[in-house]
Amino acid sequence: MSKSHKREDYKYFLEIPTRWMDNDVYGHVNNVVYYSFFDTAVNRALIEFELLNYNQSEIIGLVVETSCTYHRPISFPDVIEAAFKIDKLGNSSIRYNLALFKKDESEPCATGYFVHVYVDRLTRKPRQLPHQFREKLENLK
Amino acid sequence: MSKSHKREDYKYFLEIPTRWMDNDVYGHVNNVVYYSFFDTAVNRALIEFELLNYNQSEIIGLVVETSCTYHRPISFPDVIEAAFKIDKLGNSSIRYNLALFKKDESEPCATGYFVHVYVDRLTRKPRQLPHQFREKLENLK
Amino acid sequence: MSKSHKREDYKYFLEIPTRWMDNDVYGHVNNVVYYSFFDTAVNRALIEFELLNYNQSEIIGLVVETSCTYHRPISFPDVIEAAFKIDKLGNSSIRYNLALFKKDESEPCATGYFVHVYVDRLTRKPRQLPHQFREKLENLK
Amino acid sequence: MSKSHKREDYKYFLEIPTRWMDNDVYGHVNNVVYYSFFDTAVNRALIEFELLNYNQSEIIGLVVETSCTYHRPISFPDVIEAAFKIDKLGNSSIRYNLALFKKDESEPCATGYFVHVYVDRLTRKPRQLPHQFREKLENLK
Repeated sequence: MSKSHKREDYKYFLEIPTRWMDNDVYGHVNNVVYYSFFDTAVNRALIEFELLNYNQSEIIGLVVETSCTYHRPISFPDVIEAAFKIDKLGNSSIRYNLALFKKDESEPCATGYFVHVYVDRLTRKPRQLPHQFREKLENLK
Repeated sequence: MSKSHKREDYKYFLEIPTRWMDNDVYGHVNNVVYYSFFDTAVNRALIEFELLNYNQSEIIGLVVETSCTYHRPISFPDVIEAAFKIDKLGNSSIRYNLALFKKDESEPCATGYFVHVYVDRLTRKPRQLPHQFREKLENLK
Repeated sequence: MSKSHKREDYKYFLEIPTRWMDNDVYGHVNNVVYYSFFDTAVNRALIEFELLNYNQSEIIGLVVETSCTYHRPISFPDVIEAAFKIDKLGNSSIRYNLALFKKDESEPCATGYFVHVYVDRLTRKPRQLPHQFREKLENLK
Repeated sequence: MSKSHKREDYKYFLEIPTRWMDNDVYGHVNNVVYYSFFDTAVNRALIEFELLNYNQSEIIGLVVETSCTYHRPISFPDVIEAAFKIDKLGNSSIRYNLALFKKDESEPCATGYFVHVYVDRLTRKPRQLPHQFREKLENLK
């Protein structure tokens, strides 16, 4: 995460407007909220690619590790573009590299990563990623 | 709030996409989050009309009463339009009537109201609404 | 909600500490968060009385109406006592009157209400309240 | 973060009850909320040690990096103990190692870290940590 990141490093973009209550007492979006932008982008993409139906999917992604580096503040009413590329498509896990950009800015306000491990919805035991995950997500690497 | 409400009853509209964590265990946006849509729409409008600079404004709006009636569920990744009209421009208070619509739907998922009382930022004593509030908000009635 | 409310008006109390991100730019707990205190108190009580198992219960309570009047601000790190009594045990609905007190204060910071309608988890059609609801909740009126 | 962590590795503990809306569609506390437990514990401690007055302090801590590894799920109505020790007291920054424990469990549900950089409230330029930070936080290492 130490080197600089640009928009062209990412493959999927989702516009997310900030909300009034995202701001904390210092007038900036609270550090916690950045992770909500991350998991909104990832889950929104999975639904769009028909890889997730959170009411019915037999396997579900549990979050096992997340991280964020904060470069510059975001404040309501900023509109953010949450961006990611897939860093690693593992046997039963997916690692996403993410960034948050303000509109019209080329340098991210924040960068981070997010790791999902796929498990059986009922037993919560790890499960291999179905082949359609590889088919549909391969070009987001 | 008992009669039916339509889009044409409202004057200001703001698109707000849901977020993954808005959903609760029953797969619907949690009742609490609706109020975040309400205060995001109101504060976004006030900033747009240059009536609010939350870092500097001498007077600020404190919320004294809110209410919401839930008609039909909202679920991630729905995109909501938060709508309002001003119900009452008082001496030092503003009452907003609000509704949340799904895109392409004419009946609201929720309706409610929201009352701001304006106070001095430092003393937190009530203050009369400046004339520019009446000028700019009159046509949102 | 217009008359004054005291601790003795309520039957169930739950201590809820505020969190850092509950505060908004004005240094107070945001109006939205009060509703999270409300639904935490109600659902915590229902679980304690063995009336709710949110993973398995055949019937679930959907929120159809909520309201809050804000009397005095709350700020992190305040610890709040969320209090309620049952205002009405209907055929398929329950209405709770709620209040939020700071520790050692007799007047509430906020008062409000919260209405659950019970529905079948799968069909989401209204269902009559089982008799154990009446048995266990009668003394919270 | 790879080795196992125990309660005795931490110096400050804060009890934080979960809230109803912390749970996501899978019936677990959402990954985002863990960071709210982290920054609540850190800021609560700083206020307790009289190192932070968020309305008036000349210098404020901005979050520059956070990370969390999720070991086992947490679900409402679990009560969590958020624990930390100070990993590094830098020139103008503090790095906290954190963990979340369920009551009566010796292994953490989650571990992570959190880095504050201290800046001037107005200019937002980095500032050296005042000596009282070192005095009061030294024994939390």
